Order: sequence, then structure tokens, then C-alpha cells
Amino acid sequence: MSFKTDIEIAREAKKKPIMEIGEKLGIPAADLLPYGHDKAKVSQDFITSLADRPDGKLILVTAINPTPAGEGKTTTTVGLGDGLNRIGKKAVICIREASLGPNFGMKGGAAGGGYAQVVPMEEMNLHFTGDFHAITSAHNLLSAMIDNHIYWGNSLEIDQRRVVWRRVMDMNDRALRDVVSSLGGVANGFPRQTGFDITVASEVMAILCLSKDLEDLQKRLGDIVVAYTRDRTPIYCRDIKADGAMTVLLKDAMQPNLVQTLENNPAFVHGGPFANIAHGCNSVIATKTALKLGDYVVTEAGFGADLGAEKFFDIKCRKAGLKPAASVLVATVRAMKMNGGVAKADLGAENVAAVKKGCPNLGRHISNVKSFGVPVVVAINHFHSDTDAEIEAVKAYVAEQGAEAIVCKHWAHGSAGIEELAHKVVSMAESGTSNFSPIYPDEMSLFEKIETVAKRIYHADEVIADKSIRAQLKAWEEAGYGHFPVCMAKTQYSFSTDPNLRGAPTGHSVPVREVRLSAGAGFIVVICGEIMTMPGLPRAPAAETIRINESGFVEGLF
Amino acid sequence: MSFKTDIEIAREAKKKPIMEIGEKLGIPAADLLPYGHDKAKVSQDFITSLADRPDGKLILVTAINPTPAGEGKTTTTVGLGDGLNRIGKKAVICIREASLGPNFGMKGGAAGGGYAQVVPMEEMNLHFTGDFHAITSAHNLLSAMIDNHIYWGNSLEIDQRRVVWRRVMDMNDRALRDVVSSLGGVANGFPRQTGFDITVASEVMAILCLSKDLEDLQKRLGDIVVAYTRDRTPIYCRDIKADGAMTVLLKDAMQPNLVQTLENNPAFVHGGPFANIAHGCNSVIATKTALKLGDYVVTEAGFGADLGAEKFFDIKCRKAGLKPAASVLVATVRAMKMNGGVAKADLGAENVAAVKKGCPNLGRHISNVKSFGVPVVVAINHFHSDTDAEIEAVKAYVAEQGAEAIVCKHWAHGSAGIEELAHKVVSMAESGTSNFSPIYPDEMSLFEKIETVAKRIYHADEVIADKSIRAQLKAWEEAGYGHFPVCMAKTQYSFSTDPNLRGAPTGHSVPVREVRLSAGAGFIVVICGEIMTMPGLPRAPAAETIRINESGFVEGLF
Repeated sequence: MSFKTDIEIAREAKKKPIMEIGEKLGIPAADLLPYGHDKAKVSQDFITSLADRPDGKLILVTAINPTPAGEGKTTTTVGLGDGLNRIGKKAVICIREASLGPNFGMKGGAAGGGYAQVVPMEEMNLHFTGDFHAITSAHNLLSAMIDNHIYWGNSLEIDQRRVVWRRVMDMNDRALRDVVSSLGGVANGFPRQTGFDITVASEVMAILCLSKDLEDLQKRLGDIVVAYTRDRTPIYCRDIKADGAMTVLLKDAMQPNLVQTLENNPAFVHGGPFANIAHGCNSVIATKTALKLGDYVVTEAGFGADLGAEKFFDIKCRKAGLKPAASVLVATVRAMKMNGGVAKADLGAENVAAVKKGCPNLGRHISNVKSFGVPVVVAINHFHSDTDAEIEAVKAYVAEQGAEAIVCKHWAHGSAGIEELAHKVVSMAESGTSNFSPIYPDEMSLFEKIETVAKRIYHADEVIADKSIRAQLKAWEEAGYGHFPVCMAKTQYSFSTDPNLRGAPTGHSVPVREVRLSAGAGFIVVICGEIMTMPGLPRAPAAETIRINESGFVEGLF
Repeated sequence: MSFKTDIEIAREAKKKPIMEIGEKLGIPAADLLPYGHDKAKVSQDFITSLADRPDGKLILVTAINPTPAGEGKTTTTVGLGDGLNRIGKKAVICIREASLGPNFGMKGGAAGGGYAQVVPMEEMNLHFTGDFHAITSAHNLLSAMIDNHIYWGNSLEIDQRRVVWRRVMDMNDRALRDVVSSLGGVANGFPRQTGFDITVASEVMAILCLSKDLEDLQKRLGDIVVAYTRDRTPIYCRDIKADGAMTVLLKDAMQPNLVQTLENNPAFVHGGPFANIAHGCNSVIATKTALKLGDYVVTEAGFGADLGAEKFFDIKCRKAGLKPAASVLVATVRAMKMNGGVAKADLGAENVAAVKKGCPNLGRHISNVKSFGVPVVVAINHFHSDTDAEIEAVKAYVAEQGAEAIVCKHWAHGSAGIEELAHKVVSMAESGTSNFSPIYPDEMSLFEKIETVAKRIYHADEVIADKSIRAQLKAWEEAGYGHFPVCMAKTQYSFSTDPNLRGAPTGHSVPVREVRLSAGAGFIVVICGEIMTMPGLPRAPAAETIRINESGFVEGLF
């Protein structure tokens, strides 16, 4: 069999003018700020005018732990959005923006795949509407103002060894991870060791994605802790007086981006924080706007449900007051096989035993999602190599867990392949059975919050943390940050902190290596393992073959 | 008297939808890529389709040496464009884009002033259509790929001490001028000393502004010399295989931006290279597109005519095959007085003697511009404090030089205040007297080119250069760069290299401190004095007061 690639399908898309897509949602032309003919931002004024409308129903798409086999979480998010529209529901999709830098290392990707994609793919992998560039500028303006403050006399008495605000660039550039700046003499300032992270790792990104409006944005930016004095007094962004100018730099970036699926249904693509040191969800403002405009909003969370859904529930929904009505857990037969011990090269052969052996990974995610009070259905994202016996094995297992698994063929057939799931999601959401609440209350101590996630979601026996880490958590509680949720940064490949431990491990420990305060975003980052915040390029980066070909198409990016 | 500020006037502008402005120029809606409702890019396809049309007439607006009194070169460029439209000519304005970073140091500025402005002012001082961000990304992708090449085995044998390609950021950040990168151990590469320039100083900016299409752009990017081996063999961007991906990053940025004046006339605002280490003109592609669409194109060059017009003629026109039909030299009575020795505080009082004493600065610029074969008229940009006697003194002086000086009141009255100049420009252009040629031929040796500019334009006695600099120029000639023009980098405040030497000095020397090869842009930079390529922020940066106010307007940026 030969299939068209995602980019071939995307290039054949019969896109409608973005003004028409907006019109379907009832957005007046004057409130849609076009970027070319296929992308637009929705004006803040229009968003403000929606405040009194009722909300649609929010559907979360999450997944099992990712494996090299691929799960198709975004593909299913897009497919379900198209499927809901197909069965007569007004549905809006909300997903994240892609980071530019990594596309020049490994090939960039579609938003979705097959016949369940969001377009324009090329722009979404390049500059798109400039949001990430605005975040880079806002972040680095603060950095420049900190060093400038020190240069001109340091009246805030910043301890130059305790500047915690680094710089960012949307590029995979390992040479910038660790630098000494301000060399070259008096005119260039005071030399100190610092470094760059990739833009998606910026706290400004997390803040933009959690802010409800420009006022909230500026307040949160002001709350960022940028440095400490010698006696450990925090210095805030507000003390540096950068919050106003940063807000000005971000005012357009705060407005959600509207694009469309291959089937001309509306999709908001907005924000893209790291899913480890941040919460990994699209922006609150896009989700809330979509809820005012659609009967259904389909969104996704980063990585597997242990990281992504947990943060979606405990950080995004908690902070934004969102109440998900139902959730979809994406799994594939192939991924079950890998969880059952099959190597990637052997995935083509039928192996029902391995599927059965891998299913407990899925089972644990089902019960985890249920523990937040949200009803869940499993979407089996269909691959051509799946056999009937393998599919039946997954279905039977899921039924034993008190849930249902539905085979979805949106990749091959678009919305026509996912009608059954769409109907199921509607019936779950309409049933009113969702009774969402975060897994821990605000008042719980920070360390107990970490333990709660580790034990109830990861099924670990214990959390291991040095005295200094526990003391730091205590200190933040005393400083008034005790009500913050915790943002867990661990490997996405396992429930444990060992990426090779597939399935549903028990008896493991969660070692906390470091904790960081994101005072503007409003969470405590808990780092369990090595977390890379500035990627490098591979030996033969994709950039080497990216070019505009004779037909004027971009080649090598996908 | 009380006047409205530029921003007050700009905010009262009755902007037309940008699609309407494009329509007036005959650009089909599908070929205008909107960015909001008041900015658009013109598609490359449309530009390509114009190839066989005849060109309109090109008018250069240049000025005397800048003084703290202000000359109003951009204001006059915009005013003249409006004036030509007023008298029934189809005129298009071409100016440069503003750099984002410096606006957070000192207050940003209008494009023009008073009733001769281009809008939207706010966006043009912020992210605009993202061109500079694209340039930053393309530049830094190459930087990352160079260090990545070294990291993965350095098969090109780059001498790490001889990497000449730095990084860029569109921010005033002195801490980045001089850094050591790749610290932190094996995983982060090989430590080396490097630094950041501001984006407008990037050779990528100069290249984008001189390229005629995407193919030419990629060829020029490939030509950039990024490093040398131990035996001084140059390593090109093409060797690093970054040219294709950089072109992809720049494909939208290459398309000119269309905006409008307060009088709803079309203006292309595109590109903005440094006017010292680069040529300081808007893009060739914008100018050429405008020439296909308008009967008249009014454009400007950076700084005074000694730097700006010289580079416009010797670099931009030479390379792009442009033939200016006439030029306008902007002067003010106030600036003449400062050239005549009056301090800024005393500019309010009539002082005919000082005006007369300062006029030789203007006189020399007149004869310099004429020496390129281009007819010239002087525009006296009128200030309310100018007295009749002072104006008459300037007019009389200019008449003695065989030229005409016309008082222009576009700042206060828009196009109605500049009709006389518009008629004069038309009669000069229609007369066919322009007989443009660059001041030196391609074949002249590089050092003789420097001498030609120094002697014929700056009226210096001699050029002083170390043996090592002369040897470097010779080496470049042998390497095949001898046909390049020279790009002089010296103070803009004087014909000499001493910024305090006003008027029309003679008998001075031009010391060449350093020469640099811009192999992609296609010129040799000749540095005469201190040139700063990464500005710093002042003690109280404008950013501290920039914010969105209660009415939703940006405050403090202007």
C-alpha cells in the first residue's frame, strides 16, 4: 500500500478564507486580525464581549505513555473535533503552537496527521503569527534590564551570583546553555555566568498561557522572581520595572490564533509551554474563548496522562476554573505491544500476547483519569497493521476496567472514521456524570502535593528529597507560595522516573533533584531527573536539507 | 502655540483598509497578505509578474549632516510622497523599518512627523510584520550550525579562534557584546569567545535588503564567510549547509510591507540595515516593486548625504541597476545655525549671521550629490521659529551654488504644505537631466575606492591605513572581491571622522581602523572610528515607563 504523506495531504487542502472560518463562529470581520489569508488573531475586545455567554463542554484528549510507535494524540484531537462537527455539533479544537528551533534539528511535524490535520502546516512550523518571537523579546528585555540595573549602580542590591533569570532563544543551540556574559571591560558590565534556554521553556510562555487577560498577564509578569540579594530577599520583575513594557511586547501574542482543519472546522492554535518544567497546555485564553464560541471544545495535554492530564487538571483547570466534561485516552495496538516488550522493528507481526501484556499501562491511565472525576473513553487510533484479534484484546481489557474502547480511523478517513467516538463523547458529556476536582487541595503542603501525585498517579512507594529541598519548600510556604500547585518534571516514557520502565510499574521511588519557583506562572517546578531546557542539534540537522524547491515549496522541513 | 504630538496625530489618522490601498496600486487582493487590517505583504508571485512593466522615476531624499536640531528627512520623504499624489502623480514612498530593541532604551519614533507620517506607528515600532525576528532566527540558525559542526567532529577544520560569525538579538543588551560560550563540559561543545550584535547590524539584514529575489538571497547567504581554517582558508555559509534553511526562514520577510500615510497614500516600509557598517537603505525589492507600481518613488538614505547618499548611489543603485531621476537635500534653518556655531538652547533667537556661517555644510552636500550626475533641490523643512531673513539667507546661498531652495510646510499642513517642492521635483525628473553614475568604477582598487570617497565626498587630504589593512585589501582583491564597493563606517555628524567638526572642513585625514568583508552583501566595510554594533540601555530606559494605559493605548513608547 502507498500512502500520501502528511505534507502532501496538507498541500492538497481546500482551505477556506480564514474570515469565513471566523464568520462560522460568529466573529465579526473587524475582530479577526488576519495574518495572510489562512490565519487570524481574535481581538481582545471581541473576547471581552463574550464574558456573559454560557460555556460549551470541554473535552480533554490525553494518551498512554509515549512510545517510539507513536500514539496520535494530536491527530485524534483534530479528528474528534472534525467528527463532532460532522455529527452536527459546533466544535472548536484547541492545540499548542510548535516551537521553531527544534524543526531545524529533527524534521518538524504536522499538527495532526493523515486526514486529521490543522493547516497551514508550513507556517505553523515556521514563524506562524510571531507569538514565540514576542515571548523571546519580552523575556530578553527583562534580562537586559536586569544587567542594565546592575550596570548603572545596582540600587536594588542584586547579588550578581543570584540572578536566576536567564535569556532565551527559539533555536537548538547547545553553545548557549552555559555562557559568561559582560566580558570586555567596564563598558560591558559585570561578568557573570548565565545561559540561554529555548523559548518554550521561558516562564513568560507559561505565564502567557495561564493569564486570563492583559491585566492578569502584567500582574503575573511583575511577580516573576528574577534574582536575590545577598541576604536572599527576592527581587521581582516589578522591581526592575519591566512588566509594563513586556506586556506591550506581548499584547498581540495574547490574542488566540484561529486556523482550520482539512475539513474547514475552526481550530485555535495558541501557546506552547514545555510539558516538563511547565504545564504543557495551550493557552487559557484560547480555551476559554473557544468555550464561548463552540458547544464542544476539544483540547489536548502534553505527553502521557501521568504528566499531561495531571497538569491539565491540577494546574490549568484549577487555575482557570475549567470543568472538563469528558476525556479521551488515546492508545494504539502498536504502543500496547511495545509496552508488552516488543521491539519497534517487530511491530508489524501480530502478537496478541504482547498486546495483553502491555495493556496495564493503559489501565492505569484509565483509573488515574477517573480519579479526577472525569469520565473517560479509550480511542484506539487505528493502524493498517492492527489485526482484529489484537484490537479485540485491547477492547476486552478496557471493558474489564469499566470503560469502553472505540476504534478510530480518522487518520485514513477524516471525520467519517471517528463518528462512533464523537457520539460516545457527546453521550458522556451530556450525561453530566463528570464531577471534576483536582487531586489535591490548595491548602495541602507542597511536599504532600508532590507525594500525592507520586503515589496516586505514578503509583510510587515514596518520594526521596534532600533536607535542603524540603527546607526550600518550607521557605516558599512561609513566603506565601504554599497554595501553588506542583509542576512535575520527569520522564514522559514511564510512570516512574526510569524511562525504560514501561507498563505499570509499582514499588519505585521518585527522587526530587531540584525545585524551582515559577512565581509568575504560579507553580513550583519539581525536577525528578535530568531535564534539558536547551536542546542541541544532531550530527546531521534537518536544516542541512531544508530549502525552497523549484516549485516554490519548502522541502526538508517535514 | 500648542501642537499635537506625532502620536496624537497618528492616532487620529483615518486609515483605510490596507486592501484598498493595495487596490489603488493595482495589487489583487489575493496577492496582498494582510497582517491585521492596516499592514500587508505583497506576494512574490505578484512581484515576479511585474517584470516587464516600465519603471517609474526614482527620487532620493537625503540631508545635511544630522545635528541635535533635527532635519526631518523621513518627514520630508513622506511629505513629498503625499505632495506628489496631491498634484496628480501616482507616487509610492519607500522607507526603512524600525528596530525594536532601541525603542526600549530611548523613546521610539514616528515614521515621519506632524502631518507627514506613515501609520500604524505603534506596530512599526514593535514587531510589525516580523521581518526582523525572521532575520534574527536566520542569523542565529547559522551560528548554531557552526558550533554544531565543530561539536560533531569539525570535518571542515574550522579554526575555533577564527569564527567570524557572531549571534544577534534585537535588543539593547550590552551584557551580550562579549561572551564566552559553550561552557559546562563536553555536552555543550568547545568554549570560545564570541558575542552578539543587534539584529540590524547582521549581514543577513544587508543581504535581504540587496537581494533581488529568493534565489539571489540564497546565493548571497551561501557566500557569507563565517570562519577560517588554521591556514586562513575561508569557510562559507554554504559549506555549513545553512543557506537553504535560512532562505526558508526569510521567505516571508523578503516580501515588501505595504502601509499608508496619514493621507492614505501607499508606502513600502521594508528592511533596515545599519547605516554605518551596512548601506542604510530600504530593500531593493521594495524599491523595485514600487517603481513598477508608481510613476514616482520617493525614498531616503541613512544619515547625511556624505554617508547615506554616497552609499545609496555607490552600493544600492550600482548593485540594483537603479537610476535616480532627481534628489532632494533636506536642511533646516536651525541646523544651519548649529553648523554656524549656535548652541541648541539658543536656536530660538534669530541669527542670520550664524545661518550664513553654517551654510557651507549644505553647499558641499549639494555639489557632492551633483557629482553623481543627479539634479538636486534643497527642501527647507520649515520650523515655526524660522524668520524670513534666515530663510532668505539660506535661499540666497543655495542660489549661489546653482540650485534652488524651497520652503516646505508638510509637517504642519501635510501635502498642502509641500506642493511647490513636488512640482519642482517633477520638472527636474521630467527634464531628463539626470545622468547618474557611481563615483568610482568597479575595477578601481579597493584602497583607491576608499581614497575616492574620502577625497571627493569628505574633502579629506588623505587616507591613513596600516600596512596590515592595505595587505588585507590586497588579499581580498586576489580572492576575487576587488570589484566590491566600499561601505564607509564613520561618524554621521561631520564630513570628517571628528564628530565635533561641523560645517565643511578641509585638510583632515581619514584613518582606517579596520576593514571587514561582507561577502554575501557584496561590500567591504571600512571602519573609521569607533562603531558600536550592540547598543546598551541608558540609566533610566524608556522600557520602565512603557505600558498599556487604561484606555488600552501604549504609553511611553513615543
